Amino acid sequence: MTQRVSVVENILNANDRLAEENRVRIESAGVFSINIMASPGAGKTSLIEQTLPRLKDKLRVATIDGDIATSIDADRAAAAGAQAAIQINTGGDCHLDAVMLHGALNQLDLTQFDLLIVENVGNLVCPASFKLGTHKSVLIASIPEGDDKPYKYPGMYRGVDALVINKIDLLPYVNFRMDYFERGVQVLNPEVTTFPLSCRTGEGLDAWVDWIIQNAKKA
Amino acid sequence: MTQRVSVVENILNANDRLAEENRVRIESAGVFSINIMASPGAGKTSLIEQTLPRLKDKLRVATIDGDIATSIDADRAAAAGAQAAIQINTGGDCHLDAVMLHGALNQLDLTQFDLLIVENVGNLVCPASFKLGTHKSVLIASIPEGDDKPYKYPGMYRGVDALVINKIDLLPYVNFRMDYFERGVQVLNPEVTTFPLSCRTGEGLDAWVDWIIQNAKKA
Repeated sequence: MTQRVSVVENILNANDRLAEENRVRIESAGVFSINIMASPGAGKTSLIEQTLPRLKDKLRVATIDGDIATSIDADRAAAAGAQAAIQINTGGDCHLDAVMLHGALNQLDLTQFDLLIVENVGNLVCPASFKLGTHKSVLIASIPEGDDKPYKYPGMYRGVDALVINKIDLLPYVNFRMDYFERGVQVLNPEVTTFPLSCRTGEGLDAWVDWIIQNAKKA
Repeated sequence: MTQRVSVVENILNANDRLAEENRVRIESAGVFSINIMASPGAGKTSLIEQTLPRLKDKLRVATIDGDIATSIDADRAAAAGAQAAIQINTGGDCHLDAVMLHGALNQLDLTQFDLLIVENVGNLVCPASFKLGTHKSVLIASIPEGDDKPYKYPGMYRGVDALVINKIDLLPYVNFRMDYFERGVQVLNPEVTTFPLSCRTGEGLDAWVDWIIQNAKKA
């Protein structure tokens, strides 16, 4: 067990060092960057699809999409208007790490962009342990996932800067106690900025898009 | 990298050996056992809650619930009628492994039960790599997760014996192309037994419960 733990620690330390390199590289290019994390199917790609048209003529956007397999997500991001869309296939790994982001950044001329959106692998556990070097971490919760997720996946809720609560159009059809959910979030992460919205109906998207634009201006 | 790969391989081999021990132990007691896997919020605990009352006076059931944190799931299983409900908190690990199941089995007199339901950690990636020693692997897909999950998480879809498609009551409110989903499943796992159902309305649950009872009779 000790050997295993020490190997894992070495991997995480090496990851943090490379994440710091990524951060410096992204920042020197004046790019604002976010790392979007969520369970499978919570709406990461849908959020990107709804966000990009609203940023048209305002920000030049590159996306980097992580998945076990397929290029479905990068294809959707490109179709939605990303100026560049790179797919990372992890081949089995359940999260992106700083090495994978580093490799993807090598394929981009960052000076051509204002915003970099990284879409992580769908997973509510492991991505929280691997810094990438992005400015802000964004978690998407999804109404049909249920209201107990902050309690059961505290590591993910604790470390993020913004929380998107997607699929609010499904609230009438499922049992989701918003006050119970929000109490869980409050304990873990009282400072988090929250955006309830629906990628299907468009409700609530303006506040989210404004948050991105304001942050990109500062970068 | 080589060192990392070899450590991971050693861990997986040790896991497989212990899974085999678990299997022998469960089988000698004449217990039928399933390992339920799914994304966070797809309905693992809800399926257990709906299944247990339908097995009342037919099968004596023990549940073992894996989560990063909390005993919410074991509490719900006990309330639904499990004769024993053990919670494993992985403390950060994103999956159950054979060691954890071994520890939980030590707390049970298996001769007192006919059915063992293991509820894995919510994750569509890693649980597929860790055998536990159960008879059948069950994956729950969820309609609001979207129809592209077989394509993006092939490892999970490939290895399971039964596929529950939950939340079919939400079909009218989301974009889910059943034929596209089923084509993906067909390529990866043509032999899988499929149960479309809704834990909310109860639709489709009888076929699932029958499948459990038939398998338990053979054990």
